[in-house]
Amino acid sequence: MPKSDASIDIESSDESKGKAPLIGDAKEKTSGLKKVMGICDFVLRLAAIIAALVAAATMGTSDETVPFFTQFFQVQASYDDLPTFRFFVIAMAVLAGYLVLSLPFSVFTMLRPNIVILRILLFILDIVVLSLSTASASAAAAIVYLAHSGNPNTNWQAVCQQFGDFCQKVSGAVVASFVAVVFLMLMVLLSGFILLKNAKK
Amino acid sequence: MPKSDASIDIESSDESKGKAPLIGDAKEKTSGLKKVMGICDFVLRLAAIIAALVAAATMGTSDETVPFFTQFFQVQASYDDLPTFRFFVIAMAVLAGYLVLSLPFSVFTMLRPNIVILRILLFILDIVVLSLSTASASAAAAIVYLAHSGNPNTNWQAVCQQFGDFCQKVSGAVVASFVAVVFLMLMVLLSGFILLKNAKK
Repeated sequence: MPKSDASIDIESSDESKGKAPLIGDAKEKTSGLKKVMGICDFVLRLAAIIAALVAAATMGTSDETVPFFTQFFQVQASYDDLPTFRFFVIAMAVLAGYLVLSLPFSVFTMLRPNIVILRILLFILDIVVLSLSTASASAAAAIVYLAHSGNPNTNWQAVCQQFGDFCQKVSGAVVASFVAVVFLMLMVLLSGFILLKNAKK
Repeated sequence: MPKSDASIDIESSDESKGKAPLIGDAKEKTSGLKKVMGICDFVLRLAAIIAALVAAATMGTSDETVPFFTQFFQVQASYDDLPTFRFFVIAMAVLAGYLVLSLPFSVFTMLRPNIVILRILLFILDIVVLSLSTASASAAAAIVYLAHSGNPNTNWQAVCQQFGDFCQKVSGAVVASFVAVVFLMLMVLLSGFILLKNAKK
């Protein structure tokens, strides 16, 4: 009886010897891939923060005062004149604020990839802010287009001849916001892949 | 020796007996949940198709001809006058077309839940059309707001007093498109959960 027990012990230890390195290798590989994905996620978040801040700041400082030569008073154009631009600034500020707050969580999920619930929460919030910023960027783009080229059917005049500097700044802000949206889309795709990798392990 | 071997066999078969029903039960439960989620996905797609078609059709038929009483000619308002509304109709048509094409795939992934790659493809395309329809809906909303209330700073007059019927139809189309966007958001969330369930199995 003691002899057979010993043989069983040897067999089981043989088995573990044969399998352990393989499992360890695959785990290490997956963990390395996860680290790289986590770093990419962090960098994308940083880039999106910069783009969102640039968009909000450019739109927020787009005031322009133009003198009326015929009459002795001045006309001012500001993002505050149009509700869509106000929404744009708020949405971009919310986006930048959310992304800054999400940075520590991004690092945390990179260091502790086992906490899947945090990743899922980040993923859902990412989709929400993606929709928010897409909405604000495209609404502002529609208004900027109107400001540039006007619309003869509704008798809306183009105002960019008058407020050239204002229009340029506003257009720049819209471009920056679309750059932020692209970064966000990449982030959402990456988050999805990280989630899949986490879940499959 | 033979005696000890026999005892080992019995032990292992006992183990498998103890575990097999449990695994089967869990699998059946997960499969049932997946079926329900698949049906929800299908119904949401149908609802989003209807909302998108209503939005596109309402916007597309929003022509209005108003007689000018003082002069003897007529003025026509049409969605075609504004590039944003043209983009809206195209985006809603694309959305409805994509959703109709995705219906058989949705059914297929419901019947064969093991084909994860198809689900991932659907998920990515869902996020893309979600962004597209959010962009078109919010851009149209910005223009509709202008048409309703105008903007004194840029000297853009409200045109809804003149074209009341046109404005009402256009506003209805924007509301329908936002309903479609909400259905799409629910779909994306559901797809994410289905993916997680699939990957965890």
